[in-house]
Amino acid sequence: MTVRVTLSAPDGIGEVGAGDDLAALVLAHCDLADGDVVIVTGKVVSKAEGRLRAGDRTASLPGETVRVVARRGPTVIVRNHLGLTMAAAGIDASNVAVGHHLLLPEDPDRSARRIREQVALRAGHNVAVLVTDTAGRAWRTGQTDICIGAAGLRVTEDLAGLTDPHGNPLVVTAPAVADEIAGAAELATGKLGGRPLSVLRGRPDLVLPAGEAGPGAAALVRGEGEDLFGLGAREAVVQALAGGAGHVFGAPAAAEDLAAALDRVLPGALLPSDGSDLRLQVTGPEAESRTALRMLAHAFGWLVSEDPRSADGAATLRLRPSTP
Amino acid sequence: MTVRVTLSAPDGIGEVGAGDDLAALVLAHCDLADGDVVIVTGKVVSKAEGRLRAGDRTASLPGETVRVVARRGPTVIVRNHLGLTMAAAGIDASNVAVGHHLLLPEDPDRSARRIREQVALRAGHNVAVLVTDTAGRAWRTGQTDICIGAAGLRVTEDLAGLTDPHGNPLVVTAPAVADEIAGAAELATGKLGGRPLSVLRGRPDLVLPAGEAGPGAAALVRGEGEDLFGLGAREAVVQALAGGAGHVFGAPAAAEDLAAALDRVLPGALLPSDGSDLRLQVTGPEAESRTALRMLAHAFGWLVSEDPRSADGAATLRLRPSTP
Repeated sequence: MTVRVTLSAPDGIGEVGAGDDLAALVLAHCDLADGDVVIVTGKVVSKAEGRLRAGDRTASLPGETVRVVARRGPTVIVRNHLGLTMAAAGIDASNVAVGHHLLLPEDPDRSARRIREQVALRAGHNVAVLVTDTAGRAWRTGQTDICIGAAGLRVTEDLAGLTDPHGNPLVVTAPAVADEIAGAAELATGKLGGRPLSVLRGRPDLVLPAGEAGPGAAALVRGEGEDLFGLGAREAVVQALAGGAGHVFGAPAAAEDLAAALDRVLPGALLPSDGSDLRLQVTGPEAESRTALRMLAHAFGWLVSEDPRSADGAATLRLRPSTP
Repeated sequence: MTVRVTLSAPDGIGEVGAGDDLAALVLAHCDLADGDVVIVTGKVVSKAEGRLRAGDRTASLPGETVRVVARRGPTVIVRNHLGLTMAAAGIDASNVAVGHHLLLPEDPDRSARRIREQVALRAGHNVAVLVTDTAGRAWRTGQTDICIGAAGLRVTEDLAGLTDPHGNPLVVTAPAVADEIAGAAELATGKLGGRPLSVLRGRPDLVLPAGEAGPGAAALVRGEGEDLFGLGAREAVVQALAGGAGHVFGAPAAAEDLAAALDRVLPGALLPSDGSDLRLQVTGPEAESRTALRMLAHAFGWLVSEDPRSADGAATLRLRPSTP
């Protein structure tokens, strides 16, 4: 049987302002059925929730920033309060009155839940609701729409433990369907057509039973320290040199990962292990080796200590994971 | 007018093997019209092109790898010959006979062009063709399908220079519609249903005139050194310490970016500038400062030189961009 998925984006929505009732807007413009997914751009959610601010967006950037992830020239990529890693924290200066900017919704999962609840209450439809925003990404040019808020939706399909028809365990364990839906919706809404709403039909299996909010878009965010790319490449070097905030590099590395790094940076320095620690003997200009070691320890989540000097004066250093 | 985009994924395709005619498969199973986009999973393209290999996929990894981007425990993320940054270089061990693995198509843009040409030749339809694969991403959990090959498709919508209805220049300049289509197709094909083909209808504006291949998926790949995340955070530290391959950090940084980094790592060391170079006076343990400086210079694409020592013996170092 052919699987068919449809995205419909009505126009004629008009400009949305602070206090507008988004559920009413959805019900007025979208033809809904149980099992549909309603996609709303974060922009109109922000507008309805009064997140418009006067002035240049750089004024709002510090308040929206948890930490800077990378910076190059005028581009600042930060991790914001929602855990999203975005240029300018996701603050938007397009499709708003000139001289203004728009903050992201304060809690887009809550925004999605409210719309879902109101649609159920007023029209009796069990639909999922998804709030989107546009984001750049590592490694690839251009931007795609992603899911920043969700209610009543399985945001990922959990395939862990399943096998393919050949009996292989599935390597891809969690298609991020919420992000795929957000991107699909952008194909129907576009950026310029004044179509902030769309409806996906054909995947009712992704919609949770009435009353269940589900994990929300928060489940799509990697936790701080769980990401191999929590810092831009240059920022990682600066962070390792400056010390502090070691947690952004993640949990202590496996001994073999740190050993491989040491082998590249201080070849020949590693001594045979006498347990779970790593031991090494400093060669070359000592202060330089120690700086290197301190940085690697910081980035890899290990601690350095020094053994008493041996009879011939050589320093043996010992590394152990910073938490047990 | 409501914009409507439809994805249809037929089943009953059966197993694809080396030498199979994919254009024939598409024409036999898909109901096509001019302006459609035909989406084919990379997996069946690989199978048809004889890219199945016996043995464990780690055996093929070195040959597919251009360089390691990040590593943590058993996870190795590499940049491959196509410029794609993927776990295990995109080598796949699911949905193949046990004890085998599948390399990516050698040139997925070429694969897409062939299918497009054959569909035009045999049935007279002007369709775009898109080849997909499943990939993880920075910052977000789960995987989405992305475009790794394309023919006859505008892979990004170029909005640069356009303004919104309020007169603001558009900040999002290039929606990566090819990746959004790839993700949308996954919603119809799924991972387990034996549906490797799908058709998107409703965006004929993205399909190029007959005979035009367009930029292909290669245009979606950021060039080496153009990415702020070309290395994992830990790998960046190792690379800066180990030296070499400075190009993966990108072109020389702007002076103010390097100055900001120096200010964090060696506070107070920067001297007033006497031109386009940066000058600084080393304080603290000298060898340690020099290591820090060497690493920053490497990561930021600058070179270090030393001025003759002043009368009081202080060392003044000078930094300049490594290329003019």
